[in-house]
Amino acid sequence: MKCKVCRGPAVIDLRQHNANFCSEHFVRLVRDQTAKAISQFAMLQPGERVLVAVSGGKDSLALWQILRELGYEADGLYVGLGIGGYSDRSGETTRAFARERGLTLHEVDLREQYDYDVPTAAAVTRRVPCSACGLSKRHLFDQAARDGGYEVVATGHNLDDEAAVLFGNTLRWQDEYLARQLPVLEARPGFPRKVKPLVRLGEREMAAYCVLTGIDYIVEECPMAAGNKHLGYKDALNTIEAQSPGAKSAFYFGFLDRAVQRFADAAPRRDEGTEVASCERCGVPTTSGICAFCRLVERTAGATPVALTRKGKKIS
Amino acid sequence: MKCKVCRGPAVIDLRQHNANFCSEHFVRLVRDQTAKAISQFAMLQPGERVLVAVSGGKDSLALWQILRELGYEADGLYVGLGIGGYSDRSGETTRAFARERGLTLHEVDLREQYDYDVPTAAAVTRRVPCSACGLSKRHLFDQAARDGGYEVVATGHNLDDEAAVLFGNTLRWQDEYLARQLPVLEARPGFPRKVKPLVRLGEREMAAYCVLTGIDYIVEECPMAAGNKHLGYKDALNTIEAQSPGAKSAFYFGFLDRAVQRFADAAPRRDEGTEVASCERCGVPTTSGICAFCRLVERTAGATPVALTRKGKKIS
Repeated sequence: MKCKVCRGPAVIDLRQHNANFCSEHFVRLVRDQTAKAISQFAMLQPGERVLVAVSGGKDSLALWQILRELGYEADGLYVGLGIGGYSDRSGETTRAFARERGLTLHEVDLREQYDYDVPTAAAVTRRVPCSACGLSKRHLFDQAARDGGYEVVATGHNLDDEAAVLFGNTLRWQDEYLARQLPVLEARPGFPRKVKPLVRLGEREMAAYCVLTGIDYIVEECPMAAGNKHLGYKDALNTIEAQSPGAKSAFYFGFLDRAVQRFADAAPRRDEGTEVASCERCGVPTTSGICAFCRLVERTAGATPVALTRKGKKIS
Repeated sequence: MKCKVCRGPAVIDLRQHNANFCSEHFVRLVRDQTAKAISQFAMLQPGERVLVAVSGGKDSLALWQILRELGYEADGLYVGLGIGGYSDRSGETTRAFARERGLTLHEVDLREQYDYDVPTAAAVTRRVPCSACGLSKRHLFDQAARDGGYEVVATGHNLDDEAAVLFGNTLRWQDEYLARQLPVLEARPGFPRKVKPLVRLGEREMAAYCVLTGIDYIVEECPMAAGNKHLGYKDALNTIEAQSPGAKSAFYFGFLDRAVQRFADAAPRRDEGTEVASCERCGVPTTSGICAFCRLVERTAGATPVALTRKGKKIS
């Protein structure tokens, strides 16, 4: 097995590229593919300050490192979600990564600053934990970007993530979600641009990149996500990918090329029609009196913290 | 487990309906769902003569029986594909079904009448066998309908089939195929209407219907289809269905409700622009001098018949 670029000994085979790579050229490929996505979708402009949403996992830590190597002024934001020992370990991993590299890491802790955590919010709202978690993170990323003067929030969503979300939205033909499933969401008044520079790279590539460049990341998955539909969609697409290498990439980029514009009229019109006011609590633009995040904070106020359990057993 | 209708002992549970049924009410449900699809998509008009494409499998034999019970003048057409013992057994099963019920069955045999069979055509064209098979069947169904004065050809495609085809077309965002993936294809000059009355019913329901109404069908799958992508798509959707009962139905009918019209402009315009001539060999409308079927017949003329093999071993 020889590297496609230098013919030296290869360390990884990429079936969708029908090629093998040595460590040096694989690491370069990952960086090049990130730069290509940034350029292809006009994600970042020179001189913009970027806030990277980091979780301690392989994707977000690799993204932070690559953006720095590509010359962007990229700082990190870590949100403590209060998901037991998983959150403790994620935070420690993220802090160590930033400290060792001398990077600026901002932190928000749900329990300390807002008096709730994801398991408690899920119990109070009686919805899947991913719902309260996503709502909290979106709000806090936007707020941190505004407070810190960042034009852009970058997240570590990779091709596997985006293809699985697309698959879920396609299975239900949720046209309003399909219309908005783009690797760039443009800024609107009060909200920064959102970009996903890893959309050209899969989970396997990102894990290999971390191993080969010495990034110590948290391998365990969020215990609250176990068994959720999103992971089922990933499994189904992995089965298809094994049968037809490149199928995931064709699905996601084919959608962007030939389908997403067909759904454009289903996108909610944010800048017309609905009167946008400011949240009475936090001041963020919202269409109702109090924004969804502040309503969640109010609903969870005073709730007894919920222990993290799976099938009735406490876990950490 | 009690029947949802009569509270008698149930014989089958339908998770996507969250209900159980006794034999009598399950058989009625299958018939009612077929009638509902026919009405919902205006598939058949009273007094029209219907040609049912029958293969000897559960779907097509059940469809033929149900259309007769619903009062349609439905005759059968069986195409001998020359796929070894599988074709022999399919033909015998179909003939016995028609004979026992006193139904009119037309037959075409590829080897006898056109001097080729599907394995040989696949070898000569160097394409997957499903390609030559589909081309042959479409041509022969159309021709038999014209020759016999049938306004409509009905096929036994069920929800699992249609959802799997939709999934394959969606994975590649093949907009011209998506635009045409409808349960009814309207007649055009020289071609009958094509309808799929079983789109509201899954494979499991059709197999149960046959068992409960005493239809003796050929259980084995086509040996040439084993391992094809279509079966991979079915597997992937079955995994999703097990996780979310009703997902397949939501995928297919959501597409018809909210997406197919978004792809309409990608459909090939059959009635405008391209000049349609008659095939020099068989007279069927075609855009080239000789139709695709007659070209296949010419290419396979004189070819040594290919034995049916799998992994190098002869099978029957």
